[in-house]
Amino acid sequence: MKDETRERVLRAAAEIGYVPNALAQQFARRKSGNIGVILPFVPKVHLFSTYYFSEILSGIGETAKRCGYDLLLIFREYGGGRDYAKLFRTQKIDACIVLGSENVPEERVALTELKSEGYPFCLVNQRYDEESYATVDSDHMAGSMAAVNHLIERGRRNIAFLNGPEQYSNSTDRLQGYTLALQAAGLPVTAEQIFIGNYSRKSGYEMAERIGKAIGDGVIDAVFAANDRMAIGLMQGLRERGYETGRDYSLVGYDDSDSSRIISPMLTTVAVPFYEMGRRAAARLLDVEYKAAGAEGELELLPVRLIARETT
Amino acid sequence: MKDETRERVLRAAAEIGYVPNALAQQFARRKSGNIGVILPFVPKVHLFSTYYFSEILSGIGETAKRCGYDLLLIFREYGGGRDYAKLFRTQKIDACIVLGSENVPEERVALTELKSEGYPFCLVNQRYDEESYATVDSDHMAGSMAAVNHLIERGRRNIAFLNGPEQYSNSTDRLQGYTLALQAAGLPVTAEQIFIGNYSRKSGYEMAERIGKAIGDGVIDAVFAANDRMAIGLMQGLRERGYETGRDYSLVGYDDSDSSRIISPMLTTVAVPFYEMGRRAAARLLDVEYKAAGAEGELELLPVRLIARETT
Repeated sequence: MKDETRERVLRAAAEIGYVPNALAQQFARRKSGNIGVILPFVPKVHLFSTYYFSEILSGIGETAKRCGYDLLLIFREYGGGRDYAKLFRTQKIDACIVLGSENVPEERVALTELKSEGYPFCLVNQRYDEESYATVDSDHMAGSMAAVNHLIERGRRNIAFLNGPEQYSNSTDRLQGYTLALQAAGLPVTAEQIFIGNYSRKSGYEMAERIGKAIGDGVIDAVFAANDRMAIGLMQGLRERGYETGRDYSLVGYDDSDSSRIISPMLTTVAVPFYEMGRRAAARLLDVEYKAAGAEGELELLPVRLIARETT
Repeated sequence: MKDETRERVLRAAAEIGYVPNALAQQFARRKSGNIGVILPFVPKVHLFSTYYFSEILSGIGETAKRCGYDLLLIFREYGGGRDYAKLFRTQKIDACIVLGSENVPEERVALTELKSEGYPFCLVNQRYDEESYATVDSDHMAGSMAAVNHLIERGRRNIAFLNGPEQYSNSTDRLQGYTLALQAAGLPVTAEQIFIGNYSRKSGYEMAERIGKAIGDGVIDAVFAANDRMAIGLMQGLRERGYETGRDYSLVGYDDSDSSRIISPMLTTVAVPFYEMGRRAAARLLDVEYKAAGAEGELELLPVRLIARETT
């Protein structure tokens, strides 16, 4: 359909108060047999080799396969426009999961369009305060409180926080959990103890300079990192500066990645059910029985749990 | 087009000796904007979380993105038919990369059909003796010889081999490299020293019972494992039986996975350019400049290299 025709139809529909029949609509649209997955594209990062994306994709893949769909991966343009709705209009996909969604204007525009046009989609691990979308997320606020409480129980009082960028709701969730746990324990929350990386190993490694100095000065005795990759990078950077986790500082990561289990010393971390999150996001869109049972509401929030290991 | 119509057209074309124009054909087919990737489906395995698939997919994704294509992942049916050509006929994909291809009758039928119908496709890490297809592979025979020679240089004489299933040409390549290296050193090749797993960590772990007994009996003093996952599983299983690598036996893995670098002791291994293999397979199909330069022939064989670490 040409854009012009499309607009005329939508205008006419609005004038007569037409409400589309969801089932008929869905039936008409079941054409490609593909479920789309929108992914960030970062040229130098081997995206599928990160625990986060690989586990979510494995969960999506399992459900897609079970429901008879193929998986269309679409890499998001950086800086470019984000016309997710076009993927539906051109019948490339029948439904869509958005990964690595971030709270920036062009993303909000794209999601609003998807929603207003009634296309079936689901976010994973990202929420928006301004608008609510179908979302599968985990309880990162509770997970972060558990991480900080664990450090406090181990006798740590000067707990730094290495967070990810604030355009991700899972970063702001973690900040809230960190802050609440310190406040509940009567400990001060200071800007000097909060560091921002970008969830890469490298950003954790580079932060070792500043955090190492603070450990040396006796200002910090523990670090809570918002994911395992940053925690492991930081651990390696601090080791090169002569600081050993366990002896000089305690460390908690986040994700329970494969690496956290085989690194030495083994990393205390927070287990997140990424595979299950992917599985459920796909089931909400593709699995008739799951949808029928759906007393879930728009947001499904899965529990996480602390796993104490050698770094605390 | 209905199957019946299709057959009639093909018959008529055969009668008049019609040969399709490849360029016109390709132009007519450039419709979906998708490059297909055929993947094995193993229900319990988190496929994208394996170093092997995640790296190859990252390389394919980089090239697809650069050339303006989306990635359609298609999970192969186990036991079911494999109609890869249908993906082209129904215009789901414009080109296709086949991963985890194995030498079994239903796979050979599907590939032969793709080739005879002139669809653009490329195999990664699998060759067939009976028939030649466009393939990107690595030199696993040379890699295996390097691994075994390294163990011999370290003074080991009773070198076991933990291989993967024989329907993969990269398993038979490794067996050939293992055998040649032993023969060149004047060492016997015995069936008792060859073990077969399935490339999973679990299969390596389970083999620890038999291999541990052989180490205890003084019959084996080193193991060459066909991938890092099996090597790491074996190392853990042997540790539970009281055998430590370095002290009681030497160990070489294969892949240079992330895990091989962070496990303790760090694993000696053979680095395989999986990312580059994926990148090249996609470039052969999608990148006009790469194709124009293509003095590559049907088979591109990339070099691998031994990385000596603590387990030898």
